[in-house]
Amino acid sequence: MSGHIRIGIYGYGNLGKGVECAVKQNPDMELAAVFTRRDPKSLSVLTEGVGVYRAEDAAAMQDKVDVMILCGGSATDLPTQTPKLARYFHVIDSFDTHAKIPEHFAAVDAAAKESGKIAVISCGWDPGMFSLNRLYAGAILPRGCDYTFWGKGVSQGHSDAVRRIPGVADARQYTIPVPEALERVRSGENPKLSTRQKHTRECFVVAEEGADRARIEEEIKTMPNYFADYDTTVHFIDAEEMREEHSGIPHGGFVIRSGRTGWEEEYGNVIEYSLKLDSNPAFTASVLAAYARAAYRMAKEGQQGCKTVFDVAPAYLSPLDKETLRRSML
Amino acid sequence: MSGHIRIGIYGYGNLGKGVECAVKQNPDMELAAVFTRRDPKSLSVLTEGVGVYRAEDAAAMQDKVDVMILCGGSATDLPTQTPKLARYFHVIDSFDTHAKIPEHFAAVDAAAKESGKIAVISCGWDPGMFSLNRLYAGAILPRGCDYTFWGKGVSQGHSDAVRRIPGVADARQYTIPVPEALERVRSGENPKLSTRQKHTRECFVVAEEGADRARIEEEIKTMPNYFADYDTTVHFIDAEEMREEHSGIPHGGFVIRSGRTGWEEEYGNVIEYSLKLDSNPAFTASVLAAYARAAYRMAKEGQQGCKTVFDVAPAYLSPLDKETLRRSML
Repeated sequence: MSGHIRIGIYGYGNLGKGVECAVKQNPDMELAAVFTRRDPKSLSVLTEGVGVYRAEDAAAMQDKVDVMILCGGSATDLPTQTPKLARYFHVIDSFDTHAKIPEHFAAVDAAAKESGKIAVISCGWDPGMFSLNRLYAGAILPRGCDYTFWGKGVSQGHSDAVRRIPGVADARQYTIPVPEALERVRSGENPKLSTRQKHTRECFVVAEEGADRARIEEEIKTMPNYFADYDTTVHFIDAEEMREEHSGIPHGGFVIRSGRTGWEEEYGNVIEYSLKLDSNPAFTASVLAAYARAAYRMAKEGQQGCKTVFDVAPAYLSPLDKETLRRSML
Repeated sequence: MSGHIRIGIYGYGNLGKGVECAVKQNPDMELAAVFTRRDPKSLSVLTEGVGVYRAEDAAAMQDKVDVMILCGGSATDLPTQTPKLARYFHVIDSFDTHAKIPEHFAAVDAAAKESGKIAVISCGWDPGMFSLNRLYAGAILPRGCDYTFWGKGVSQGHSDAVRRIPGVADARQYTIPVPEALERVRSGENPKLSTRQKHTRECFVVAEEGADRARIEEEIKTMPNYFADYDTTVHFIDAEEMREEHSGIPHGGFVIRSGRTGWEEEYGNVIEYSLKLDSNPAFTASVLAAYARAAYRMAKEGQQGCKTVFDVAPAYLSPLDKETLRRSML
């Protein structure tokens, strides 16, 4: 397997498993090792012959892994893990706390510059592919408006928030774009849309026995930040229906820029990018894998420090060489 | 206006005018000069105070123009003009003869490397933004199928082909994606689609007085390469209706990749990019202007030679600096 990009997975939840699947689909990559904070013996991975190691032993395996893909969470894992691991590996993460990206970038950049490694942070679809589309569309159509719609899909944060309400045994929350808002945006009228006009929220809740459902519904619908600004529907279902109908993690959304061209801005233009994903973590993982390839190649050219999707020339992502790309894809 | 990117326009047809409009929308650019093969005195441009010069005098104005945007045609203009002007300027073109891109790239690359200039060829939307979306989507979803649909929009090449038929005074041809084909692709079934199943063609024809309309219709519908493989509708209209209803140059289309993720490829994913453009040349010109900015910045960093959209990191396209981009768009 010489010449392959040796990928390490750091954290083996839904996202880590997704990266494992993505590596399987990319013939120029191989899975070198999986690192976990759990007992490595308790964990069995899908790829035959791949070792599972303790997270704290990662640094010792510097010569076995080319690119480490970090699959932890943005709240507490990545802010410390990404800078730490950038001292030993080229690293990729999907840090998605938009407001804290500048801070995270600075920490990772300092670490990566010291070690001479490359890091690509905030890869995925938002931040990630959606961000790229906002940038491209904004650069092409300076006179226009941006709209991002999310869904239909499961929001883990909102599902968790509902689960924390007393009397709730399980919950799943779907974010849904309002079809009329999408149509108005696509028509080019550049509407001003309130939070409530853009998305609705739909909750499926398994209540504990004897719990006051009216009270639960009221608590959901009035929850500040999460639900109060939205039209929310609450459905009470049983555990079996939850398992059968709502165990997937689909997601997706739309990035639309509507802008004007022409001397008097007489021409309308709509640029739309959309995703429809059966599995949010499997897709995010596929983006991470593509940026692992990019990081590996950019490092070979001597580049170092922290990058984002904005800094990565598209050709680095494809397994095809530039001549083939020009001939077959341009 | 110091510090502005001084743009030259080489060729002042629909595309050249579009570039002029795009420059007006970008506060970091200014239009420095327009070059034409016609008599410069016969040409009046929209921007106040901008000089019009003879095409052959361009080289003498090397110190007045930072980036020259070539607005000629791909058949005979750009293959000679882009390499020639790359000896004096950073150049941008929209060369769109897909099969000849490798040859054009080689000629422009040699010229630009000799002069130390930078060139970005084949910018626009196809090749251009559509190509980028094919590349990104293919890198993220290695197991999948690509689909490109064009339209609804005016095809200049097909309109010209109809106009060459004896008895035709004027003609406009629209390329239209078949809605059922689009829906099948979006559903994730990855259908094999014939040429006829993907697009239909609709022609509006002004016949000369006394011309045999049945013969014209038959000649259109059976024309090899252009129409024979499609279901084509022909409408005969009068010159007034042509002027009132069909004088615009709208276009657009869809790039869709449908691919599978998961260990057993159990998850479907659809990535869709679409454009809806009131004016094809005005939009193409807006893409050219954004890549002129990119070329200018890449040149400042010492890069040279021929590039395509695949080689340009997205951040170069935006007027915003990288820190602002990370904070506001990621």
